[in-house]
Amino acid sequence: MSAAMFEPEPVKTLKGKLIGVGTGPGDPELLTLKAVRAIETADVLAFFCKRGSTGNGRGIVENFIRPGTVEMPLVYPVTVESDKNGDDYRGAIAGFFDQSAKDIAVHLDAGRSVAVLSEGDPLFYGSYMHLHLRLAPTYPAEVVAGITAMSGCWSMAGLPLVQGDDILSVLPGTLGEETLTERLSGTDGAVIMKVGRNLPKIRRALERAGKLQGALYVERGTMANGHAMRLAEHDGSPAPYFSLVLVPGWKDRPVHGDTP
Amino acid sequence: MSAAMFEPEPVKTLKGKLIGVGTGPGDPELLTLKAVRAIETADVLAFFCKRGSTGNGRGIVENFIRPGTVEMPLVYPVTVESDKNGDDYRGAIAGFFDQSAKDIAVHLDAGRSVAVLSEGDPLFYGSYMHLHLRLAPTYPAEVVAGITAMSGCWSMAGLPLVQGDDILSVLPGTLGEETLTERLSGTDGAVIMKVGRNLPKIRRALERAGKLQGALYVERGTMANGHAMRLAEHDGSPAPYFSLVLVPGWKDRPVHGDTP
Repeated sequence: MSAAMFEPEPVKTLKGKLIGVGTGPGDPELLTLKAVRAIETADVLAFFCKRGSTGNGRGIVENFIRPGTVEMPLVYPVTVESDKNGDDYRGAIAGFFDQSAKDIAVHLDAGRSVAVLSEGDPLFYGSYMHLHLRLAPTYPAEVVAGITAMSGCWSMAGLPLVQGDDILSVLPGTLGEETLTERLSGTDGAVIMKVGRNLPKIRRALERAGKLQGALYVERGTMANGHAMRLAEHDGSPAPYFSLVLVPGWKDRPVHGDTP
Repeated sequence: MSAAMFEPEPVKTLKGKLIGVGTGPGDPELLTLKAVRAIETADVLAFFCKRGSTGNGRGIVENFIRPGTVEMPLVYPVTVESDKNGDDYRGAIAGFFDQSAKDIAVHLDAGRSVAVLSEGDPLFYGSYMHLHLRLAPTYPAEVVAGITAMSGCWSMAGLPLVQGDDILSVLPGTLGEETLTERLSGTDGAVIMKVGRNLPKIRRALERAGKLQGALYVERGTMANGHAMRLAEHDGSPAPYFSLVLVPGWKDRPVHGDTP
């Protein structure tokens, strides 16, 4: 036997794990047990935020952050008000995600686990998706599902949304009025996101599709100051970014007191 | 002053609260903190199940049931194999929900809180909706959102589903092939539920819509024996009821290594 056989292997640095953690829609009680454990045990806690703020995600999980956790704010280079179809925006945001992924990779290469907070559910319209795409091919990665904003909203409002063989459409309020009307006519239940200044258009489309009466407007669902109201009774004033319109399906729902 | 003024008011029995509790898709770690608290503190724990079984919902929360909790199985009168469009089925199931609501109301009238378990999210295709409709107009009611099966599945698979202004369609696999093809052609992301014996039809529709390549087949997502695979590689053998097909949107996703 040669001495070489007894030579210790060079110490391999185990790569750290990337964990996309859904924080749910706002109420810390809507965190999953798995999310809490991931936040409590991660070496590094990364979160998206705007300049001058620590972001909603970090606010939701605040009470579960272990002292000594390395915090890593990922500060958006632009605000939601930018023209998202402009080349400047696309370039800046792609560069931002590239750089964020590189910064996180430094920790992963050193064997540190990195939990990235994602409001709602990480793979459902979440910024985390951009990091997952860049890092998951190279590093061990896990995604912890979160309660989506829409789920939080219809639960707060107590509005049964879809049942049985219903079709549900999740639509951005940024669609044109014709397309919105058509989509709303051809679905059972619907969730309209990105409401904001699109509210008057959404209202017209729902009216044309004959679905205004059942529609609910929900503002900041599951946040402390959240509320819901019938969209037909809304005064049309500008809606905040964190608002949704819910259109219930389940056409053949039994009326209370009906005999079967 | 008459003596009557000092007579004590008749003791009012405060009505108990109805709580629809989402258990998430299967992994007990995907219960929310709020769900755990509701289960731990409820006087009565109700859950849907088939004859001879205690149901998936109860299995998920098993470790959180307080000793002494009154358990209330709500046993479906029919199985999933019945003809759901038949009058017999409709009558039996409506009668079952009526009776279940009455049984729960007895507890609520006595001031006992009743948590009703609902797999996934209570107001998203859940049986709990039928009880909510019957009881929420009369009793205090609260809904605790849960992680949906679809969210659990795309997280397990690490599949980014929709981003930006994507449209998401949730479709039942029971739709006809023409309708399915049309719907799949006209959406960005899609989730197809109720796969089971509809799998070959779903596959054909995806092929015709040009979306078979990206589609993922997920069986028992987030359960211990769950797995995911490309639908194109599936051998076409019958799929279990708890399976989903995921069609990712996000057409303009950056390819890893692209310069912005």
